[in-house]
Amino acid sequence: MVESKPRGRPRSARAQEAIISATLAVLVETGFAGLTIEAVASRAGVGRPTIYRRWATKEDLVVDALAATVPVASTVDTGDLAADIAETVRAAINGLGGSEVGGVVVGVLAAAAANPVLASALAERYLAPRLGVVSELVARGVAAGVLRSDLSPEVMRDLLIGPLVYHWLVTGSPMSEPNTTALFTAILSTLRT
Amino acid sequence: MVESKPRGRPRSARAQEAIISATLAVLVETGFAGLTIEAVASRAGVGRPTIYRRWATKEDLVVDALAATVPVASTVDTGDLAADIAETVRAAINGLGGSEVGGVVVGVLAAAAANPVLASALAERYLAPRLGVVSELVARGVAAGVLRSDLSPEVMRDLLIGPLVYHWLVTGSPMSEPNTTALFTAILSTLRT
Repeated sequence: MVESKPRGRPRSARAQEAIISATLAVLVETGFAGLTIEAVASRAGVGRPTIYRRWATKEDLVVDALAATVPVASTVDTGDLAADIAETVRAAINGLGGSEVGGVVVGVLAAAAANPVLASALAERYLAPRLGVVSELVARGVAAGVLRSDLSPEVMRDLLIGPLVYHWLVTGSPMSEPNTTALFTAILSTLRT
Repeated sequence: MVESKPRGRPRSARAQEAIISATLAVLVETGFAGLTIEAVASRAGVGRPTIYRRWATKEDLVVDALAATVPVASTVDTGDLAADIAETVRAAINGLGGSEVGGVVVGVLAAAAANPVLASALAERYLAPRLGVVSELVARGVAAGVLRSDLSPEVMRDLLIGPLVYHWLVTGSPMSEPNTTALFTAILSTLRT
């Protein structure tokens, strides 16, 4: 410790940023299974207690690091609700797809298959707000009579988001713009009333 | 070494099975980044040279372990090509989804985002034969005039497979049978001519 005066907000905010960014860097290198609080602390240049003061477990830390890094999509409003849904999904997924952060997100989702604590923290604090944006748009579309009401909102969400995520997962790159446009034209033709 | 006589086929086949199964177990525990040939050798009860004799790198070993574990889908033939495609995809993805092996496959795909050598081995030896089954069915459907010819085969593949993989990735479980049926009814209505 260089200083003994009480930590101000700016200083703890800087430490927090350093910890979040170190967490992502360690995830890229070692994946979720290999990540230790020790490695994050060392890379962030903080002591382990600084991390434990805020995050009780590595699951907590990793989920907060993803949530702090991947923004919740802002919805677009062109007056055409079905097109807005497509555009919101395209911007969110193709922005993440192929990036290092995108690979980290999918890696952590995969690790959750063997870790129920991680799965539940991810579902609650990472996925719920992000998928909620799409679910809300879909619900609005159904309520407005623009989208079919005979498909469950969950199926519509998987149909809208899944192909783009899958494309990126198996090819390593976001789907091209022309193919994304053709894809959403096809999906919307079946989702519209 | 207990015996000095030349190794017969059965013995090397047993060693290979032990190595493949140890590779999967280590992947579940440590993920791709944490896997070492040392750890696989120790768990399989073989020496490291036994592994290196056949697999030059851990990328090679991991891709072969996945390929040996996840069967290439056998196609169904009900006389209705569009329905056959849906059924083939459903059986392959929902069989894998939610299983430990499914989590391992997605974890390795995610690791490939930061590892071009892994990405290329996966694409060539794991993904190509498995996605090829779906691509071939789609190509047959287009040639037979059953499926639209104005969407690229790659987009159709992503549309058919993506929602099921994504559902499993964000929920940890395969999509329910009724929802899968509703999903494929919707997808096929837009893919059929």
